Amino acid sequence: MIKPSIPKGTRDFGPVVVRKRNYIFQTIRETFELFGFQPLETPAMENLSTLTGKYGEEGDKLMFKILNNGDIFPKAQQAKDNRELGTLITEKALRYDLTIPFARYVVMNRNDLALPFKRYQMQPVWRADNPQRGRYREFYQCDADVVGSNSLLNEVELLLIYDTVLTRLGLQGYELRVNNRKILSGLAEIVGKPELLTDITISIDKLDKIGMDGVKKELQDRGLGEREIGLIENFLNISGDSTAKLAQLQELLKDSETGKKGIEELSYVIHSGLTSFNVTPIIDVTLARGLNYYTGMIVEVKAPATVKMGSIGGGGRYDDLTGLFGLPGISGVGISFGVDRIYDVLEELQLFPQTAQQSTRVLFLNLGEANAKTAFAHVMLLRGKGIATELFPESTKMDKQMKYADKRGIPFVAIIGESELQENMISIKNLQSGKQEKINAADLAAFAF
Amino acid sequence: MIKPSIPKGTRDFGPVVVRKRNYIFQTIRETFELFGFQPLETPAMENLSTLTGKYGEEGDKLMFKILNNGDIFPKAQQAKDNRELGTLITEKALRYDLTIPFARYVVMNRNDLALPFKRYQMQPVWRADNPQRGRYREFYQCDADVVGSNSLLNEVELLLIYDTVLTRLGLQGYELRVNNRKILSGLAEIVGKPELLTDITISIDKLDKIGMDGVKKELQDRGLGEREIGLIENFLNISGDSTAKLAQLQELLKDSETGKKGIEELSYVIHSGLTSFNVTPIIDVTLARGLNYYTGMIVEVKAPATVKMGSIGGGGRYDDLTGLFGLPGISGVGISFGVDRIYDVLEELQLFPQTAQQSTRVLFLNLGEANAKTAFAHVMLLRGKGIATELFPESTKMDKQMKYADKRGIPFVAIIGESELQENMISIKNLQSGKQEKINAADLAAFAF
Repeated sequence: MIKPSIPKGTRDFGPVVVRKRNYIFQTIRETFELFGFQPLETPAMENLSTLTGKYGEEGDKLMFKILNNGDIFPKAQQAKDNRELGTLITEKALRYDLTIPFARYVVMNRNDLALPFKRYQMQPVWRADNPQRGRYREFYQCDADVVGSNSLLNEVELLLIYDTVLTRLGLQGYELRVNNRKILSGLAEIVGKPELLTDITISIDKLDKIGMDGVKKELQDRGLGEREIGLIENFLNISGDSTAKLAQLQELLKDSETGKKGIEELSYVIHSGLTSFNVTPIIDVTLARGLNYYTGMIVEVKAPATVKMGSIGGGGRYDDLTGLFGLPGISGVGISFGVDRIYDVLEELQLFPQTAQQSTRVLFLNLGEANAKTAFAHVMLLRGKGIATELFPESTKMDKQMKYADKRGIPFVAIIGESELQENMISIKNLQSGKQEKINAADLAAFAF
Repeated sequence: MIKPSIPKGTRDFGPVVVRKRNYIFQTIRETFELFGFQPLETPAMENLSTLTGKYGEEGDKLMFKILNNGDIFPKAQQAKDNRELGTLITEKALRYDLTIPFARYVVMNRNDLALPFKRYQMQPVWRADNPQRGRYREFYQCDADVVGSNSLLNEVELLLIYDTVLTRLGLQGYELRVNNRKILSGLAEIVGKPELLTDITISIDKLDKIGMDGVKKELQDRGLGEREIGLIENFLNISGDSTAKLAQLQELLKDSETGKKGIEELSYVIHSGLTSFNVTPIIDVTLARGLNYYTGMIVEVKAPATVKMGSIGGGGRYDDLTGLFGLPGISGVGISFGVDRIYDVLEELQLFPQTAQQSTRVLFLNLGEANAKTAFAHVMLLRGKGIATELFPESTKMDKQMKYADKRGIPFVAIIGESELQENMISIKNLQSGKQEKINAADLAAFAF
């Protein structure tokens, strides 16, 4: 008999963890709904033709492919190499993210959708990454996207969703860092190396880790000259509040139309004046986030500095996502919550409320058939009032039943012993305080469990 | 460009359907919790060593196996046949049901679990069955099981859960049909052919479809003689209310210890007197349900007869499930809800409540920047009161915005035109009644949306 185990990088979620995770999901879901976003669910499996080539070469490698059913042996025989083998014996793979399935759904349902389509989706995705602390092969993504609207109002709404969710979760000191992809394009333009946009942003993105000298060294290695590096250094040295930063950007990028458009967009998003935030978004010109994908605003959410966690969410505007499936010209903007990391942050800061950890409130001990029968009526009464209640199914030693309550974290134990049965009373023990009291059975419904 | 599609037998769930499905899930979840069951979630992928051989030969064939990542070509080259190929290039498969992963979890966590362990699990499973009406390759299972307790109280509780959930969903006229596997064993015993138990029950199970003559013919073909078929006919002709049926069973099976034990268990489950049901469970001696698996009570839930749907749930008691993974002697009992079928039943009987179909309540039209800014403050006010509200993101033709509200099924449209803006008023149109009224902006919070 082999000792059972689960695949590398996957997890079982026991009751306590499921409840806490559901608290996070529920908070996000309620906020999405409040802002008018609508739920979507797509299949775990997608056709390979939908997924292949959408996540780069690395993505194709990390996808979990599903073996075709039936006799695949003859087909496998025909393969000349690994790539051909894959093509011959698989035609489906597990969902790799929620964005491509969403784009596929929009294209398939284009005639029935009311545009703009504001959808949210909270489902697991699978990647054959090497598992490590905080990185799993199965994990949930929680996305909200708007497609079919170019309005910057959507950007503001999505930032507000971050602000609302994180506040509702009790977090303080998180940061909403915002940038605009066009500003980075503008920088590459005024540096005179638009073709090096990716190189420049990859280097800039590392400022946090390797410092200014490190970035300058890297830019040099990537073939930039002194004057160009100087311009980039000026860009990175932009400082002050948002208004000051925008003014400095204005000056630096004044010769780039793209850059100026980016500043205008960023300025609107930051200073729309539509509403007040609990935590005001800040400008971070070093923010890059997978440049090839985004075309407008980019956002990243940082956990409170007291917790070493880094990014707990991110997103941005992209053009023409559905163009991949033959429906061009639809712009979109979206955000994503990193639920696993948010979980760790709430755990570390002890922010999970009591209600997120609550299971059964009351356990009636089982002290023999007659007592249990009386107890069962009370159990049903409490359930009818919405109080999760159990009767221990076996009439075993009281000690064993008390241990069950303790292990389960059930706060109240109700006892109907022989004397209680005759007097029509119930003894109720609060396991937290240790206090025990005897009440009339008729008063049970009114008891403050 | 290939027209995008999804794999055979899978489904996208759009907003309207997700909401209705969540209403069913939520009703089931709340009831499970009320009865003290605890949530569990297991990975979509399990090791093949966990799944293989647990669902019979058919199950092994219908499992979706995951191709190993990396270069599998050399390994595939070594294979001599289809079976060996599978072993060499796969080591994981998608969850096929929730029961085996549950057993695996119990064994892995045996030292930490408080027994009895009452768990519920609501997750998708995948089977490469040929898709047909009502049968999918990806579908949700909703299970509740108790392991580590032999008490028949658990059977009563699980029947009560069915009764509670279906009542809460507004269903009437469903049937809770109950039998006991030991009664069928007893029948095979008194017939003198215990080795034909499976044959007998397979035939009996068809009574609904092929009638008494059909069953008799089949039993004959399976090698039973006249006397034996006569005994089985007597068994099938048992009639009357539960008390009458039990008395007739008592007489028929009086020479089988197993049979009598089954009757005793069935009698307790039906007549425990612990509580009253909305729909009283009935005895159906023809009920069989995958005999090899169950060892005690078996239950099947039938949809109301007015809907042609058949079974919408089922379950039973099994011994020694965890023995498969080296932990013998743990008995369990469980039930399952067929969510896809329950969905179809509620749809056909129009039992989905309005609340299960509700998305955004109020759409503010976007009539230019100044108006939109004023509107946005109202939007945030309503959201703060828990009312899902949107501002149309683009300042386009009113007509287009009204169409959006209509298509989305948003019941109220709020309009702040030039005159409203100056008077500090809001016009609110009820799209269902067509009624429009103008209110003071200050009265918005009190308006009955």
